[in-house]
Amino acid sequence: LNGERVLGIDTIGMAIITLLTDFGLKDSYVGVMKGVIASINEEAKVIDISHQVEPQNILEAAFLLRSAYRYFPKGTVHLVVVDPGVGSERSAIIVDQGDRIFVAPDNGVVSWSLRKSCGYNIYGIENPSFFLAEVSSTFHGRDIFAPVAAYLSKGMHPSNFGKKRDRLKTLEFPPVSVKEGSVTGEVVYIDRFGNLVTNIEQGMVSSGALSIRVKGVEIPGLSSFYAEKTEGELVAIIGSLGFLEVSVNLGSAKEVLQTKVGDKVEVILG
Amino acid sequence: LNGERVLGIDTIGMAIITLLTDFGLKDSYVGVMKGVIASINEEAKVIDISHQVEPQNILEAAFLLRSAYRYFPKGTVHLVVVDPGVGSERSAIIVDQGDRIFVAPDNGVVSWSLRKSCGYNIYGIENPSFFLAEVSSTFHGRDIFAPVAAYLSKGMHPSNFGKKRDRLKTLEFPPVSVKEGSVTGEVVYIDRFGNLVTNIEQGMVSSGALSIRVKGVEIPGLSSFYAEKTEGELVAIIGSLGFLEVSVNLGSAKEVLQTKVGDKVEVILG
Amino acid sequence: LNGERVLGIDTIGMAIITLLTDFGLKDSYVGVMKGVIASINEEAKVIDISHQVEPQNILEAAFLLRSAYRYFPKGTVHLVVVDPGVGSERSAIIVDQGDRIFVAPDNGVVSWSLRKSCGYNIYGIENPSFFLAEVSSTFHGRDIFAPVAAYLSKGMHPSNFGKKRDRLKTLEFPPVSVKEGSVTGEVVYIDRFGNLVTNIEQGMVSSGALSIRVKGVEIPGLSSFYAEKTEGELVAIIGSLGFLEVSVNLGSAKEVLQTKVGDKVEVILG
Repeated sequence: LNGERVLGIDTIGMAIITLLTDFGLKDSYVGVMKGVIASINEEAKVIDISHQVEPQNILEAAFLLRSAYRYFPKGTVHLVVVDPGVGSERSAIIVDQGDRIFVAPDNGVVSWSLRKSCGYNIYGIENPSFFLAEVSSTFHGRDIFAPVAAYLSKGMHPSNFGKKRDRLKTLEFPPVSVKEGSVTGEVVYIDRFGNLVTNIEQGMVSSGALSIRVKGVEIPGLSSFYAEKTEGELVAIIGSLGFLEVSVNLGSAKEVLQTKVGDKVEVILG
Repeated sequence: LNGERVLGIDTIGMAIITLLTDFGLKDSYVGVMKGVIASINEEAKVIDISHQVEPQNILEAAFLLRSAYRYFPKGTVHLVVVDPGVGSERSAIIVDQGDRIFVAPDNGVVSWSLRKSCGYNIYGIENPSFFLAEVSSTFHGRDIFAPVAAYLSKGMHPSNFGKKRDRLKTLEFPPVSVKEGSVTGEVVYIDRFGNLVTNIEQGMVSSGALSIRVKGVEIPGLSSFYAEKTEGELVAIIGSLGFLEVSVNLGSAKEVLQTKVGDKVEVILG
Repeated sequence: LNGERVLGIDTIGMAIITLLTDFGLKDSYVGVMKGVIASINEEAKVIDISHQVEPQNILEAAFLLRSAYRYFPKGTVHLVVVDPGVGSERSAIIVDQGDRIFVAPDNGVVSWSLRKSCGYNIYGIENPSFFLAEVSSTFHGRDIFAPVAAYLSKGMHPSNFGKKRDRLKTLEFPPVSVKEGSVTGEVVYIDRFGNLVTNIEQGMVSSGALSIRVKGVEIPGLSSFYAEKTEGELVAIIGSLGFLEVSVNLGSAKEVLQTKVGDKVEVILG
């Protein structure tokens, strides 16, 4: 989780745009954005990260982006449209990190995915000559963000779209409390399988005996894989994002423990 | 909403096929159609408009197509498979508008997307030499429509697939009643956010003071964006399709007003 | 249903990878796999078969793969990740059938899609030099399967990934009981429309008068298409997979008959 891209392979021929929205898949909003992108850059390859973000849940989108961005090739443009402030005076920004570019409303949704060690440049999205001719007040994904991402994917420099800025809105990643003998964090995401992803990093729980407490239940020790436990049993494991996760083998920890995002998870060390 | 493509950019190199069905995303139906398309035209880029149309709801599909088609490049083939009459004597058609081609069962699903001012040519889909070798009676999306769309995307002329026709089945777009001092329309679509899209066009409500009545509730005036109102408050707004919409800021008008498609919406002018 | 590809067209220029998982579409898992694939083979075209397999339901995934694989071009790599044993000692395999390649955990999920008449070669997936640098214990779709499928789609021979094997795990396709005067099978899949797909093949019910019994209800005769019956009426039909299906015209047989996978279906002949 050091922020570097995971793959040692650089592909630069293909222009990739990822999409992350709360638009769902029933309405035509996502298809329309892809139509706009194809109209501007027919070579762009669009990859969906998710369109099932809970409506207007910026924190959920921020988490999903953080879980995904490292796995895309150099040069990928990551477009996020979770935008409760659409049409208001809220800003829209481009964040250029060299290896990758983020495009989003300036509401903090990209802030957990920025690699501070390498620096980045922030630009406003202000130049209407790159927008659709008519800009609605409710669907900037179509009228502003899709065209800007498409032009960026063609190699256009971010400075064409607006002025350089000093700062962007950031969200605080929920902090972990570390005491002698215990680490207390919380559930930050729950996936389709009912796995409870916490904010407790692998390094905080890697040594010695420990047990995990969540919703009054105690789970002894870390497992190496789900099937170490019998069907229906709780299991604590380091998940694929490098965080402590609580799961049920062949079942749903969310259902078994009746958990929700924000619930406390405590690790008792030693 | 004048029917012209919104973008001033013509891309003709890439063959795009859009898909709009009621097949959902769990079954393999959509993937299979894409496999058939790739087998015939490996260069085709397939873009999903929606597969979550309510089963057999032709009106919903007609609305989604109308909301989307303008945003795709010149030459796009729009394939719609919402087809309760599959296997019966119902016809299948190609409608060629020069800039774009529609392929669908002849049940009216494309009729709200035709640009009457520029004319179009209608062809039957009758020539089995372009179908899969075995045609089932329940899945023409795979056996007939996907191959025909794929050949069209390669530039094959629509006349290869069947005879030219004079007419196609049309659906009536719900009419708006305009009286002195009021305009009465209805909810024609409800999106994921619970926004109520009406059939009342921007031009009908653009001047002067007004208020909107729906389900016994009165909303004073049009807003310019959702966040003009406080969280949970009703807001009337011109939506991204150019129609009056009723929404709740950071909430769902569908839930707050317990509305469904077909419910009356009245605009009191002046 | 003889196992041959249905299309007489061979396209070999394009590398296609199909994805079939139980990851759903809300989490970023599927998008991340596509990012890994694009990082390794930017030319690969990824087509989703389904990501809505019920969590850990290997039989459902096996059925969906069987329903789909024939409709993809020669050379397609079919990747299936439904993997309750992830991280344990369960094997991962490549099955090479010349025309197509399957990649999956060795849990039987590909066994209904193998064309026995033509033979196939099985290889283990063992060589970590093709995996991501860090392999998690919970997401081999990202760390192992996606990279292997991507390298295969570039034309790399399966023997690069591991040793040839003699056998793979197989699942039994539910057998049909054929007696004089009757055939008894079961519901093996239920689709979005509530159509009940059985394991009774077309050839078993193709001649003479017959009636179908399911959940105590008797349906007289086979229909040629849904709309032969009136709205809401039960209809027995040979479905698009070549199996007997029980449907309701413009409705859901699943709801009308309160059926589930495994329920018995009896055909009375003559």
